[in-house]
Amino acid sequence: MRIDDKEAAEALKNMDNILILAHENPDGDAAGSAYALCRGLVSLGKKARVSLESLSVNDLFMRDGLDESAFEPEHIVSVDTADNKIMGVSGTGLTKDCKVELCIDHHMSNVFYADKTYLDEKAAAAAEVVYKTLVCLGVKITKIIAECLYVGLATDTGCFRYGNTTSDSLRLAAVLSDDGADMAKINKLQFETKTKEFASLERMAIGSMETYFGGKCAMLVITHDMFIKSGATDSETQALASLPRQIEGVLAGITMKERQSGIFRISVRTNEPADASAIASLLGGGGHKMAAGCSYSGSKKNAVNAVLKSVETVLSQEGLL
Amino acid sequence: MRIDDKEAAEALKNMDNILILAHENPDGDAAGSAYALCRGLVSLGKKARVSLESLSVNDLFMRDGLDESAFEPEHIVSVDTADNKIMGVSGTGLTKDCKVELCIDHHMSNVFYADKTYLDEKAAAAAEVVYKTLVCLGVKITKIIAECLYVGLATDTGCFRYGNTTSDSLRLAAVLSDDGADMAKINKLQFETKTKEFASLERMAIGSMETYFGGKCAMLVITHDMFIKSGATDSETQALASLPRQIEGVLAGITMKERQSGIFRISVRTNEPADASAIASLLGGGGHKMAAGCSYSGSKKNAVNAVLKSVETVLSQEGLL
Repeated sequence: MRIDDKEAAEALKNMDNILILAHENPDGDAAGSAYALCRGLVSLGKKARVSLESLSVNDLFMRDGLDESAFEPEHIVSVDTADNKIMGVSGTGLTKDCKVELCIDHHMSNVFYADKTYLDEKAAAAAEVVYKTLVCLGVKITKIIAECLYVGLATDTGCFRYGNTTSDSLRLAAVLSDDGADMAKINKLQFETKTKEFASLERMAIGSMETYFGGKCAMLVITHDMFIKSGATDSETQALASLPRQIEGVLAGITMKERQSGIFRISVRTNEPADASAIASLLGGGGHKMAAGCSYSGSKKNAVNAVLKSVETVLSQEGLL
Repeated sequence: MRIDDKEAAEALKNMDNILILAHENPDGDAAGSAYALCRGLVSLGKKARVSLESLSVNDLFMRDGLDESAFEPEHIVSVDTADNKIMGVSGTGLTKDCKVELCIDHHMSNVFYADKTYLDEKAAAAAEVVYKTLVCLGVKITKIIAECLYVGLATDTGCFRYGNTTSDSLRLAAVLSDDGADMAKINKLQFETKTKEFASLERMAIGSMETYFGGKCAMLVITHDMFIKSGATDSETQALASLPRQIEGVLAGITMKERQSGIFRISVRTNEPADASAIASLLGGGGHKMAAGCSYSGSKKNAVNAVLKSVETVLSQEGLL
C-alpha cells in the first residue's frame, strides 16, 4: 500500500522495538537516512536500532552515543531500498524476504515489497523523504540528526551538482545547516579527502586512460594489479566512473574494474545523444540512458575489445561515428 | 562610504549610461554578477554595458541578446572587485584609478576605493550581494538573470562544497532554480566538463605527483613542457591546486605551475593546523591560513627544493614533522 508522510508517521507512532534496514553496500544516503530515522524514533522514547552491512569511516559519527544493544525486533522498517532482493540483512539472522512493515524511499524503481511504502520519486535522496516523516512525527531536528540527513542529501546529489538536485533539496540543506549541520566538515570528509591508497590507484587509472573513435569514447581500466599495488578498496573507486565522460567530445565514457582477476565490472556513462543502456545491453547488462553497467569475464585485451565493439555498434547505429 | 542594499538600489536608480566593470581574470562570479546587474538595469529601461577582460566559453550565454553597442558611460559600477589595483580596464580606455561610483562586493579585503560600497562579507559570492540589490531595485528575476547569478554562486562556493557556503547561499540557489535557472545544465558545463587539452595536462600532472616528509607534503608540478605538449590554457589549471591537499595525511599540498619557462607560480594549500601563509611568506609570497601563493624563478629542481625547504621549516616550527 502506498502511503504519504502523515500516514508513515502514524505507522511509526504505533511501533516500538524497531529494526531499521537499508540496501546492501550502503552509501551515505542509506546510512544517513537510517541513522536519522533511528535517532528520531529514539528521541520519542522508542527502542530502535540500525543494522547496516557496513559503515564508512566518514559515517561512523552517525552512531556515536546511540544505544546499540540488541533487542528482539517487533517491527522492520527499510529506508532507501527499492527492492527486497538488495536488502542488507547480513548479521541480522533475517532473510531478504523478511516482512517489512514500512519502506521509506525515493527510487522510481521501488517494487512495493513492504506492507506500506512512503515513496517520493521526486526526492533526490531518501534523506529528504525521511526528513518529511520526522517532521510529521514532531521530532526535533538536532545537530546530529541534521548531519545524518545532510550526508544523505549531499551523497545522492553529488553535493548539489547532479541533475536530480531540486530547489527542495537545496532548501532542505539550508534548513539542516540552520539546525546545526556542519556542512563544511562533512563536505571536506565526503568530497575533498582521498585515502593514500585511492590517490595511488587514481593516479594509475588516470594514467591508463585511452581514447578511441577520434575521441568519442574514453576508457579507463582499473586492473586487478592496480588494486593490489595500491591497496585501495572497491568502494572508493565509484567516483572514477564519471571521469571518462567529462572530457569534451566524449560520447561514451567507459570504466572497467577488475576487482577479481579476470572479471571486469563495466560502467558505461554517456553524453547526449549516446545511449548507455544500449551499449551495456550488447554485453548482457542494462541501465539508464546516461548510466548503465555490465560485466565481462576474460582477459583485459578481450574485455577492452568487446566493449569497444559494443560502443562502435551503438554509436554507428545512432549515426554518431 | 559604506551603504546597504536599499541605498545601493537608490544610487543605481539615479544613474543611466552605466559601465559595469569587474576584476582582472574574471571568474564565474565576476561575470555572473556583472551580467545579472547589467540585465537588471536594462530591464528598468536604462542603458548599461559590461566590460570584462575575458569571458569563458561556458559563460558566453550570459551576453546573448544584450545590446552591447557603445555609449559614453556616465557612471561606473564595479562588482566582485576588492581593490581598484586589480580592476579589469583593458579595452575601456580607462585607468585602474578611474572614478567608481558604486562597488558591490563580498570580499573582506575590500579597500573601499569606490564612492559608495555595498559590501556583504558574509556572502559566499558577489552574486548574492547583486541579487539583494536587484530585489531592492524591483527587478524581475528572469531565467537568464537567475542563470547568471547561479553561475556566480556555484563558482564561488565550488557548487556548495566549500566552507564559505551558508544556508543563505543554498536558499538563494533554490530561489534561482525556481526562477528558471537550469542548474543541471550549468553544473555539467562548469564542473563536469574538461577540454581534451586539460584532460591531457591533468593526466601528466597527476602522474608527476610526489609525496615528501612521510606523506605530510604532496606536490604536483605542471612544467612548461606539459603546457606545450597538452595545449591546455592556464585558466583551466586552477582546479588542480586543490588536489594534493585532498590526500589523507597531507598537511601541505603544493601545486607549481611553470606557465613561462623558468618561472614557477606556487599554490600552497594546507590542512589544519599547518599554516599556508607562513610557507608562502618564506618565498616572498602570502595569503591566508589554508591557501597562499608565491613564485620562484629558476630551474624546476631548485624550485622544488626551495618549496620543500619552506615546508620543512614551517612544519618543524609548528611541531608537525
